Amino acid sequence: MVLKMSVADLEAFMRDEFPQVAQDFTVEAAAPMRLTLRLNVGERHLRPGGTVSGPAIFALADVGVYLAVLSMIGPQALAVTTNCSLDFMRKPVAGADLLADVRLLKLGRVLAVGDVLIRSDGAEAPAARASMTYSIPPARQG
Amino acid sequence: MVLKMSVADLEAFMRDEFPQVAQDFTVEAAAPMRLTLRLNVGERHLRPGGTVSGPAIFALADVGVYLAVLSMIGPQALAVTTNCSLDFMRKPVAGADLLADVRLLKLGRVLAVGDVLIRSDGAEAPAARASMTYSIPPARQG
Amino acid sequence: MVLKMSVADLEAFMRDEFPQVAQDFTVEAAAPMRLTLRLNVGERHLRPGGTVSGPAIFALADVGVYLAVLSMIGPQALAVTTNCSLDFMRKPVAGADLLADVRLLKLGRVLAVGDVLIRSDGAEAPAARASMTYSIPPARQG
Amino acid sequence: MVLKMSVADLEAFMRDEFPQVAQDFTVEAAAPMRLTLRLNVGERHLRPGGTVSGPAIFALADVGVYLAVLSMIGPQALAVTTNCSLDFMRKPVAGADLLADVRLLKLGRVLAVGDVLIRSDGAEAPAARASMTYSIPPARQG
Repeated sequence: MVLKMSVADLEAFMRDEFPQVAQDFTVEAAAPMRLTLRLNVGERHLRPGGTVSGPAIFALADVGVYLAVLSMIGPQALAVTTNCSLDFMRKPVAGADLLADVRLLKLGRVLAVGDVLIRSDGAEAPAARASMTYSIPPARQG
Repeated sequence: MVLKMSVADLEAFMRDEFPQVAQDFTVEAAAPMRLTLRLNVGERHLRPGGTVSGPAIFALADVGVYLAVLSMIGPQALAVTTNCSLDFMRKPVAGADLLADVRLLKLGRVLAVGDVLIRSDGAEAPAARASMTYSIPPARQG
Repeated sequence: MVLKMSVADLEAFMRDEFPQVAQDFTVEAAAPMRLTLRLNVGERHLRPGGTVSGPAIFALADVGVYLAVLSMIGPQALAVTTNCSLDFMRKPVAGADLLADVRLLKLGRVLAVGDVLIRSDGAEAPAARASMTYSIPPARQG
Repeated sequence: MVLKMSVADLEAFMRDEFPQVAQDFTVEAAAPMRLTLRLNVGERHLRPGGTVSGPAIFALADVGVYLAVLSMIGPQALAVTTNCSLDFMRKPVAGADLLADVRLLKLGRVLAVGDVLIRSDGAEAPAARASMTYSIPPARQG
């Protein structure tokens, strides 16, 4: 298995296709079926009390699995999330970025499934766990 | 069963406790164990192509169940989401608000479970389905 | 929308294709995108204390959505469950059958999504809630 | 972290409390926050075609997380599953046992969360993924 998109490719793709959110994320590492994504936590991700919001955690898991899929199949902006399950287990550490460790468990012709462990940068115990299913559109023929 | 918070109470609570997101939502209706919440769709909720983003749909479901719980137990800002499952089934209609119909299925001493159907205003087929579990902190004694 | 399989068709299909479990279930009603399935609770479904087991509840939800899909698309034994989420909310009533009310929320070309409310026969509050996704194989051409 | 129940303790507990299903499972290994459970696949777990059934896979994940929780907190027969999410990703290998690798991600005062990877014995790619939440009853005081 070889990556079809490098870390630099993935970041360029995000900037081009999702300019609104590209600055929220940094791809820390990519390997076959694995990817680590950082949420660059800023004011807009916080709830009162300084905790990262649920929607920001959802977005981190969702973008993480999406980029892991793209790293394997190449830039196809049309893959869509069909299902997600999330467990919120611990309050994120105030003021810390979040790191998502993504593992693709399945990369089929039609569906891809990834699971994600999310923790505050510097913490060991996970703040959240997610699994996401993506539907992959039929390849466009050249 | 009687509501401990009316639509007006819920909206005032949102403005006080979650000023960053209060403007995103309008409580359309509240009844025992049921609530309808509108996402006032704006530019910041959209992905390229004009579709409402996944995180915005997550937020709508999450806030909807949260407010439904509060309507029954009164203002306790400390209830936290512990689990969520989401199915994304159809692309939301571009330019339309989203409406979430929330039904509380369980309101226990420790856990509350709600399910949510989300559709574009004016559409019949659901865009998404969610279920959310909230952990309710032990009541603070006076 | 018209049913492609009636209650009698569905029961005959279960007896032919799933003889091991057909006796566990009775199709109570079928209508477009809706189906009610009964778990004929017997000794083998119980845990100590007389409660219906988790796997039996899973099976009820799974078979319920499967039959609801078949009622709409006709007998295709190859549809497979790809995802399920379940909330267990209340102990089933000892000695009572379980009834599953299934609602298909999506019946696409590739994926079908159903949600299910499960309650003890005679009870009103739900014992469990499920959502199931089925992957539908490409139609075999004649 | 020290185990409160060894592999032998867990197997004895299963035989005493869940005699109907104890023979279905073998605890392969237990370590702090981790456990491996084998489903001793027999005729009664199979669907036509020789594949392990969905309810048997659910049971494997459910019992696996349950035993992992007990290994940490000691024998408390009252912990109950409150939520489960399951992704079915590949057909299990016909005729092979299933192995569940359980990891406890949270062991709180009230809730425990575990995730589970399930694969056919001898295979590498996972057949299924699960996450389960258990509600832990307040400790009985002596």
